[in-house]
Amino acid sequence: MGMLGGGPGAFIGEVHRKAARMDGQIEVVAGAFDIDPKKSRQMGRQLCLDPKRVYGDYKEMLEGELKLPPGERIDFVAITTPNNWHYPMARDFLKAGFHIMCEKPVTMTSKEAKDLQKLVKKTGLVFGLMHTYTGYPMVKEARDMVQTGKLGKIRKIVAEYPQGWLSTPLEKTGNMQASWRTDPKQSGGAGCMGDIGVHAANLAEYITGLRITEVCADLSTFVKGRRLDDDGNCIVRFNKGVRGVLYASQISVGEENGIAIRIYGTKGGLKWVQLEPNTLTVYWLDKPAQTIRAGANYSNLCKAAREACRLPCGHPEGFFESMANHYCNFAAAVRCKLEGKKVKAGQFDFPDVEDGVRGMLFIESVLRSTKSRQKWYKIKK
Amino acid sequence: MGMLGGGPGAFIGEVHRKAARMDGQIEVVAGAFDIDPKKSRQMGRQLCLDPKRVYGDYKEMLEGELKLPPGERIDFVAITTPNNWHYPMARDFLKAGFHIMCEKPVTMTSKEAKDLQKLVKKTGLVFGLMHTYTGYPMVKEARDMVQTGKLGKIRKIVAEYPQGWLSTPLEKTGNMQASWRTDPKQSGGAGCMGDIGVHAANLAEYITGLRITEVCADLSTFVKGRRLDDDGNCIVRFNKGVRGVLYASQISVGEENGIAIRIYGTKGGLKWVQLEPNTLTVYWLDKPAQTIRAGANYSNLCKAAREACRLPCGHPEGFFESMANHYCNFAAAVRCKLEGKKVKAGQFDFPDVEDGVRGMLFIESVLRSTKSRQKWYKIKK
Amino acid sequence: MGMLGGGPGAFIGEVHRKAARMDGQIEVVAGAFDIDPKKSRQMGRQLCLDPKRVYGDYKEMLEGELKLPPGERIDFVAITTPNNWHYPMARDFLKAGFHIMCEKPVTMTSKEAKDLQKLVKKTGLVFGLMHTYTGYPMVKEARDMVQTGKLGKIRKIVAEYPQGWLSTPLEKTGNMQASWRTDPKQSGGAGCMGDIGVHAANLAEYITGLRITEVCADLSTFVKGRRLDDDGNCIVRFNKGVRGVLYASQISVGEENGIAIRIYGTKGGLKWVQLEPNTLTVYWLDKPAQTIRAGANYSNLCKAAREACRLPCGHPEGFFESMANHYCNFAAAVRCKLEGKKVKAGQFDFPDVEDGVRGMLFIESVLRSTKSRQKWYKIKK
Amino acid sequence: MGMLGGGPGAFIGEVHRKAARMDGQIEVVAGAFDIDPKKSRQMGRQLCLDPKRVYGDYKEMLEGELKLPPGERIDFVAITTPNNWHYPMARDFLKAGFHIMCEKPVTMTSKEAKDLQKLVKKTGLVFGLMHTYTGYPMVKEARDMVQTGKLGKIRKIVAEYPQGWLSTPLEKTGNMQASWRTDPKQSGGAGCMGDIGVHAANLAEYITGLRITEVCADLSTFVKGRRLDDDGNCIVRFNKGVRGVLYASQISVGEENGIAIRIYGTKGGLKWVQLEPNTLTVYWLDKPAQTIRAGANYSNLCKAAREACRLPCGHPEGFFESMANHYCNFAAAVRCKLEGKKVKAGQFDFPDVEDGVRGMLFIESVLRSTKSRQKWYKIKK
Repeated sequence: MGMLGGGPGAFIGEVHRKAARMDGQIEVVAGAFDIDPKKSRQMGRQLCLDPKRVYGDYKEMLEGELKLPPGERIDFVAITTPNNWHYPMARDFLKAGFHIMCEKPVTMTSKEAKDLQKLVKKTGLVFGLMHTYTGYPMVKEARDMVQTGKLGKIRKIVAEYPQGWLSTPLEKTGNMQASWRTDPKQSGGAGCMGDIGVHAANLAEYITGLRITEVCADLSTFVKGRRLDDDGNCIVRFNKGVRGVLYASQISVGEENGIAIRIYGTKGGLKWVQLEPNTLTVYWLDKPAQTIRAGANYSNLCKAAREACRLPCGHPEGFFESMANHYCNFAAAVRCKLEGKKVKAGQFDFPDVEDGVRGMLFIESVLRSTKSRQKWYKIKK
Repeated sequence: MGMLGGGPGAFIGEVHRKAARMDGQIEVVAGAFDIDPKKSRQMGRQLCLDPKRVYGDYKEMLEGELKLPPGERIDFVAITTPNNWHYPMARDFLKAGFHIMCEKPVTMTSKEAKDLQKLVKKTGLVFGLMHTYTGYPMVKEARDMVQTGKLGKIRKIVAEYPQGWLSTPLEKTGNMQASWRTDPKQSGGAGCMGDIGVHAANLAEYITGLRITEVCADLSTFVKGRRLDDDGNCIVRFNKGVRGVLYASQISVGEENGIAIRIYGTKGGLKWVQLEPNTLTVYWLDKPAQTIRAGANYSNLCKAAREACRLPCGHPEGFFESMANHYCNFAAAVRCKLEGKKVKAGQFDFPDVEDGVRGMLFIESVLRSTKSRQKWYKIKK
Repeated sequence: MGMLGGGPGAFIGEVHRKAARMDGQIEVVAGAFDIDPKKSRQMGRQLCLDPKRVYGDYKEMLEGELKLPPGERIDFVAITTPNNWHYPMARDFLKAGFHIMCEKPVTMTSKEAKDLQKLVKKTGLVFGLMHTYTGYPMVKEARDMVQTGKLGKIRKIVAEYPQGWLSTPLEKTGNMQASWRTDPKQSGGAGCMGDIGVHAANLAEYITGLRITEVCADLSTFVKGRRLDDDGNCIVRFNKGVRGVLYASQISVGEENGIAIRIYGTKGGLKWVQLEPNTLTVYWLDKPAQTIRAGANYSNLCKAAREACRLPCGHPEGFFESMANHYCNFAAAVRCKLEGKKVKAGQFDFPDVEDGVRGMLFIESVLRSTKSRQKWYKIKK
Repeated sequence: MGMLGGGPGAFIGEVHRKAARMDGQIEVVAGAFDIDPKKSRQMGRQLCLDPKRVYGDYKEMLEGELKLPPGERIDFVAITTPNNWHYPMARDFLKAGFHIMCEKPVTMTSKEAKDLQKLVKKTGLVFGLMHTYTGYPMVKEARDMVQTGKLGKIRKIVAEYPQGWLSTPLEKTGNMQASWRTDPKQSGGAGCMGDIGVHAANLAEYITGLRITEVCADLSTFVKGRRLDDDGNCIVRFNKGVRGVLYASQISVGEENGIAIRIYGTKGGLKWVQLEPNTLTVYWLDKPAQTIRAGANYSNLCKAAREACRLPCGHPEGFFESMANHYCNFAAAVRCKLEGKKVKAGQFDFPDVEDGVRGMLFIESVLRSTKSRQKWYKIKK
C-alpha cells in the first residue's frame, strides 16, 4: 500500500501501519507522509522504503506510481491526513484507478462525500473508511445478536463517546493532535462531533442496521478560545420508532476513549464498552445476564466475531487488532478486484463510502440542529 | 411515627418501616395502612400495634391522634401511598400540626406542591421528602467535592436512571407496583419520568447545587396499551452554563435500578453508580483516578459522608441505610422542633418540600416539552 | 433478646442490634453491655431499656432474668463480647435454659466448643453462631448450585479473606477493636486466622457441604510487637478429593473486608465476592458466564436466596441484612421451640454450634500446622 | 529472524510472528516451521519466504544459514516449538553464534538450563526468554513502584494463574495445544506448573526483585488419564521474609487466562490482572486507591511503562503488544551486539536465560515438594 500522511509526530498514520502490517498481508511500499517533503523522506527512511517511492506530496505520488508498470504499483492508498485532505486525495486516486482506505470523517462536507460515493460507484473501486470501532469482535457479535432478532424488536439506544483530553486548551501548547482537530480549516465545521460523535453514530447504525432519521443537538464549546465544539449532547430518533441518546465530549475530565453503547429490545439488551472491548454483556427479560467474551470457545459465537479474533479467550486483543480486522476485510475485497472478481455490497465487512456519506450528513445535521430553535432536525438522504 | 400506606403487599411502606427502625430512634405506633380497613388492621396486628391506633383511613387517623394528649400523639406521619394521596394527606396533617415524611413525587401537580410549600412555611413544621438516593454516603461525598470546588467549575452532567422491569405489560398481570405506577389517576401525568426521572434530576441538583433551567424531552410509551410514558430522553441545561443529558427508562431490559451520575468540571470529574453505592470514582486532569470508598478511614472523607456510614469499609451498606440516613436527619430536625428550637434551612441534610416543588416543575416541564416542537422548554420557578 | 457486650464504643454489638431489629421481630429488652457497669447502664439508657433489666455483668443478668416470670424473661441471649467470654456466658445461659446467638469464634478452644456442643444436645436449646457471610442471598444461591450438582463434581476451592486495617500497630493507638483482637487472652491462640480465616473456612464448607480434612499453614506476624498472627496462607484438602487454597490477612494494605470464594467443578465454576455481595458469577464449560443478581425475578433463583432478599433487584442490600437473615432463621427456630415444636438439624438455615466446633478445630489445626515441619496436618473430628 | 516451530496449526509461533512484526523492525526471513518438512514449506509459502530459506529441520537451517555470507544470515532465531526441542535448538544455535529468543520454559530440566546459561555467558550472545506477561506496561509500572520503595517494605505476594481450558480431556480430541502440553515427553515433568505456574513465579520475581526461596506445593491431576498435573497450589516464601501464595490451574472452569498478582508492602499495595492489562490498581495506607492506566498522560508514570505503550490512554493494547515489547528490547540488545557494543546485564528489559534457570528450578522444586512429606522445599541456586 501507499500512505498519505503518517509523518513524524503523527498519531493515526503509525497506527494504520501497525494494523495493516499485523497479519503479514499488507506492506507499505510508497508514501507521501508529510506536507514537508523533508519529513516525508525522513519517515521513508525510517520505514526502509525505496527512496524513489517516497514522495513530496500526494500529486507527486500519484504521478510516480502511475509511471510504474501496473504490477509494481501500489494496490491501494491509505489516507491518514487531517480531514481537509481526504477529499482531494481520495478523488484523485479514485480517478486514477486506485483503491482507497480513508480515515474518518470521509470529507469536510456531505457534498464532497456524495461526490466520492458517485466516483466509487462509477469506478467500481474498493473504498474503505476507518471507523475502527466496528472492527472489534464483540461489536460484530452484538450486530449478529441484534440482526438475528435475539433481542427482539429494538426500542432504545444509548450511544456515548466521552473523552477528557481536550479539557484544557491543549491546542495552544503545540500539541499537533489538538491543533488540527480544533482548527476548522483542517477539521471541518464540527470538532468533537466530527472527530468522535460520528463514531458513536456509526457504531449504533452498524450494530442495529437502523438509521438515525432525526436529531436534536446541543453542542458546546467549553474551552475559551476554542473554535470548534468540544462537547455535544443529542437526543435522536432512528427509523422503526427507535429512540435514543447520543453524546460525545472532549472535556469530560478523566474519560479516556469511552465509546460505549447500550441497546435495548423487547426480549433483551446489550452493552459494549470499548475500554474492555473483549466483553459483551447481554441481558435477558427473565434470565441472568451473560458475559460473552472474545476468543471464547462456546459454540454459538457468530462467525464474524470468531474470525475477528487472533487469540484464545483471555489473551487481550485491542485497538490495533480492531483496525487490522478492517484492513483484512478490505484487503480481501481488493484482492477479489485484483483477481477480476465482482464484489457485492456487504460481501466484505468493513465501513465504506456509504458510511462516509451518512456520517457527513449526521455531522451537518447536528451542527444545524444546534443553531435551530426547532426540536427535531431531519437527516436528509 | 404514624404511617399512611404500607399495607399488605405494598413495597415502599415496609422499606420505610425498616429504614425508620434501623437506628432505634423511630417507632411505628399508629397507621392507616391500606384503603381497605381490614387490610390496615391486618398490618397493624403484624406490627403488634395497639389496635386503637390502627385506623381505617387517614382522616380517622388524624382525628384519633388529635384526641390523644399531645405527648402521646405521633410526632410525625410517613406518607407511603400512591402519589394521588400525597397532597390531601400532607395538607391535612400539616394543618393539624404534624411533621411529615412524604414519598416522592411530592404531589400530582406543581400547584399542589407549592401549596404544601406555603403550608410548611406558615406552620414551621418539618417536611421531609424521600429522595432516597441522596442519603448515600458517597453521594454526600460527591456533593462535598463539587461544592468545595475540588472539581473546578462544573461543565457537564450526565444523569441516567435506566430500569427494565416494565419492559412487558406487567400492569396487566395484577402486579400491584406496576398497576398504580402506570395509572394516571394514581401516578400523575408522568410515568417513568415521575417515578424515577425526577430522582435523577434531584440527584444532579443535590450534588452540584445547580438548577435545571431548560429541558428538551422526548418521552415515549413503548409497551402497547400503557397509559403513561415508560421511557424518556432529555437534553438539559443548568444554570451557570452547565449542560447535560438526563434519561430514564423502565423498558431497558436487564437494567435493574441503574441510577447513576457523572459530573465533569474544569479540574476533575466524578462518577457514582447506585448499584455499587459505596464507591465514588473521582477523576483528575493529570493524576490517576481515585476510588473513594464509604467507611474508609482516610482523613479527608467529608463529615457528612462519614456520619452517613454505620460500618467500616468493606462491610456493604445499601438502600435501607440510605433511607435511614434521611430518617435520622429528619428526626433530628423534628427533635429540635419538639424541644422548641429553631431549625434553619439546610441545617439538616434531607430532601424537603423545596425539592418537591422543583421536582414537580421538572416533571411538568418534561411533559410539556415532549409535546412541543420548540427545542427548549424553560422551567418556571 | 438480652445482650452481652455491645457497650459504648463496641463495634459488633451495635451491628447485632441493628440486624436483630431490622425485621421488627426481635427487641433488645435486657443486657449487660460492658464490663464496666456504668457503661452498661449508659448503653441501657441510650437504648431506652427498663433500668432494672440493665445489668452489671452477665451473672447478674442471668439471675435477674431468672427471677422474672417465664413469659417475661428474655427468649434468648446474644453474646457479642470479646472471644474469651463466649464460653462461660454461653455455658451458663444454656444451663439456665436460654437459647443463644453467639459471635464467632464460638470459644477459645475446641474443647470448650465441644463442651457447648454437648450442652446444646442435652438441653435441646437453639444455638446460633454468627458467621455473617453465609447469610447473604447469593451465598445461598451458590450453595444451592453446588449442592444440586449444577457445577458437577467439585474439584477446587479458593477461599480468601484479605484485610488491611492492621497493617500498622493500631493496637498501640488505643483502638479498641485492634486491642482485644491482638491480645491472646481475649482473642485466643490465633489472631487473623481466628478472627477472619475461620469465616473463609466456614464459607467454603457451607457452600459445598464439604469438610476441610487437612491443612498446611504458614502464619506470620508482620507487625513488630504484635502477639498474634496477622497473616496466614494455607493449602488445604477437603474430603472427596477436593483441593484448595485458603488465606487470610490483616496486613494486606488497601484490602477492606475482602472475603471471597471461587469454586470449580467438572461442569462449572462460581465466584462470590463480599464487596459486591448481590452478584454471583457462574461459569460454564461451554457457555458464557452468567451474572446472577440478588432480588432478580428470573424463575430459577433458589428459594433460600429469594427469601433472603428484602428488596427487588438493583436496590443494594448488605451486611446488616445478611446478619438479619441469620437472626430471622434463628428466631424462627426459637419460635418453634417456644411453641413446643421440634426443630430438626438443618431445618433452619443458620450457623450453629457444629460450625463452632469445626471452626475451633480448624483454628487449632492451622496453629499446629504452622509450628510443624510436616506438610499435612489432619483436622481431627 | 529465523523461526523454529510455528507451523500450520501452531499457536504461539504465529503470535511471535505478529508480535515481532508489529514495530516494523523484525522480519521473518527463514524458518524450519514444522517437524514435517512439507508443512514447513507450506508455512514458508504462506509467509512469502524465499524457498531456499525454508528448511526441513533445525539442523538443516543451521547449516543453511551458516553457508550464507554473514551479512545475509538471520540475526537471531526464535524458538517456538514444544518444550523438548528448546534445549538442543538453543544450544546448537548459540554454539554457532546466533542470538536466541526462546519460548518458556527454557528447557526440560534445570541442568539443561544451566548449560545454556553457561553457553550464553561464554559466547556473549543475547538470549531472550518469552515470559510475555512482564512485557505489559502496567507490570513495568508495578515493578517501578515496588523497586523505588513506594509500597514500603514488601510483606506478602499472592500470584495466581487460573485457566479452565483443560477441564475436560481435550488432549484426547486431537487438540494440538492440549496434546503436547499434557505429554511428558514434549512438555517435561510438569504440566500446569510448567506451562503457566512458572509465569506466575516469574511475574512475582520480576516485579519485586525478590526470589522464591522455599515452596510447599500440592499438585493434582484432576482429569482422568491425564499424565501431568493440571492444577497446583503452593504456599511460598521469598527472601527478605516475604510470604506468599502461588497457584495455577488448567481445570478452573470459566477462567480464561487469569494470571494476576497482588503485592502488599508496609505503605501500600497493588493489584494487576492480565485480563484488564492496562489497569494497575494501587492501594495506600490512608488514601483512596488509585487506578493507574496505560497510556495516561499523568506526569509520574515511569519511563519503562511509558515506552511500553504505543497508543494513548483508552485505546486498548494487549497480548501482542506485550510480546512485542520484549521483542523490541531484545532487538535493541541484538542491535547493540551487531554494532559491536557491549550489553550490560539488565541494560535492556526482557526476560533472559537467568529467568530460565530460575524457572526450571522453581518447576523442579514444586514437583519435588509435591512428593515430599516435609513442609518446605528449598529452591537451590
